[in-house]
Amino acid sequence: MNSKKLQKATNISWHEGEISRFDRYKILPQKGATIWFTGLSGSGKSTIAVALEKALYKDGILSYRLDGDNVRMGINKNLGFSEKDRQENIRRIGEVCKLFGDAGLIAISSFISPYTHDRDDVRQLHIESNLEFIEVFVDCPLEVAEKRDPKGLYKKARAGKIQNFTGIDDPYEPPKSPEIQLRSHEMSLESEVSAIINYLNECGIIKAKKNE
Amino acid sequence: MNSKKLQKATNISWHEGEISRFDRYKILPQKGATIWFTGLSGSGKSTIAVALEKALYKDGILSYRLDGDNVRMGINKNLGFSEKDRQENIRRIGEVCKLFGDAGLIAISSFISPYTHDRDDVRQLHIESNLEFIEVFVDCPLEVAEKRDPKGLYKKARAGKIQNFTGIDDPYEPPKSPEIQLRSHEMSLESEVSAIINYLNECGIIKAKKNE
Repeated sequence: MNSKKLQKATNISWHEGEISRFDRYKILPQKGATIWFTGLSGSGKSTIAVALEKALYKDGILSYRLDGDNVRMGINKNLGFSEKDRQENIRRIGEVCKLFGDAGLIAISSFISPYTHDRDDVRQLHIESNLEFIEVFVDCPLEVAEKRDPKGLYKKARAGKIQNFTGIDDPYEPPKSPEIQLRSHEMSLESEVSAIINYLNECGIIKAKKNE
Repeated sequence: MNSKKLQKATNISWHEGEISRFDRYKILPQKGATIWFTGLSGSGKSTIAVALEKALYKDGILSYRLDGDNVRMGINKNLGFSEKDRQENIRRIGEVCKLFGDAGLIAISSFISPYTHDRDDVRQLHIESNLEFIEVFVDCPLEVAEKRDPKGLYKKARAGKIQNFTGIDDPYEPPKSPEIQLRSHEMSLESEVSAIINYLNECGIIKAKKNE
């Protein structure tokens, strides 16, 4: 999606806030960033996202988890599952992440987000805003995810009760160079969370605790 | 707008985060809330919002200001100024405020938001989420706002170059019972900010500093 094409409103200008992101960093123990999970339904995205949120919280770090289900009940409740609506779904979530990042929080986004194009648009949005975008590919084979089927959605998709279901009759495009790749069916939850926390430390988004 | 009517997606459920808003309150010096400014273009909304953000920041309080111009460049860049788009503009902003409130921040929203119906929808959204919604009516006579005309928009509207401009050829519906009413042309900026800070203290959203 070309962001220039989308821009409808005229007579507007970017209003630079008097208090900037960098001011907020002075009163926060972290820098703003987006951790963007992507992977099949049942791959373990939400489980890792929830565990990550907990681990960050234990260190006093403020993050906020955006979840497909929650967002669908709120800001994106007027979107369905057509191709256009799915794209707009991801676009809005990306914009919300950007706002959270600008506010100084670590946004944790946990959506299938199957298309490279949509994810790259969100990445571009972050690059333009000088915000760190950390794509975490939760890499789980379809057969494992389908066997787990925590919401019974694969079963419904196989029975033809849900159309355009990622992995069944709609493609999942794996990221080519994600910041982090987690082979979730071969790793412990603890090691998955550690991999992300280590990355955040290395990027300087959070500070490693001393004496640990 | 009836929120049930809008809900398109099915097979979804509210995913309760393992870390709740109330957990976040333990590591924050404030509670989540939305301060919703409403008033004519040129009434002083943004000026007060910026000053409020600064005052809160000085006390270490984390707020985030959503501004008509900023939001129009991002999450709402695919919206124009038709009645439907204006309504959707306010709805999305309300949902973003709710997310910020849930994250534990004070969202400061600064939009004309001329229609009672749209503002009441956002209020309802907050009530349903047990989040404080503080409507601040920046009450400035049209002739004063038009004389200020900081963006030259009234001039354009009078010349017919902008249609459906609030106060000229589109109505502004003043709030009947806002939490705070500021007669901005008769008050100092300092006293306006104080009125809001005092309200936040009284509500327990922020804590009054001792020895001051």
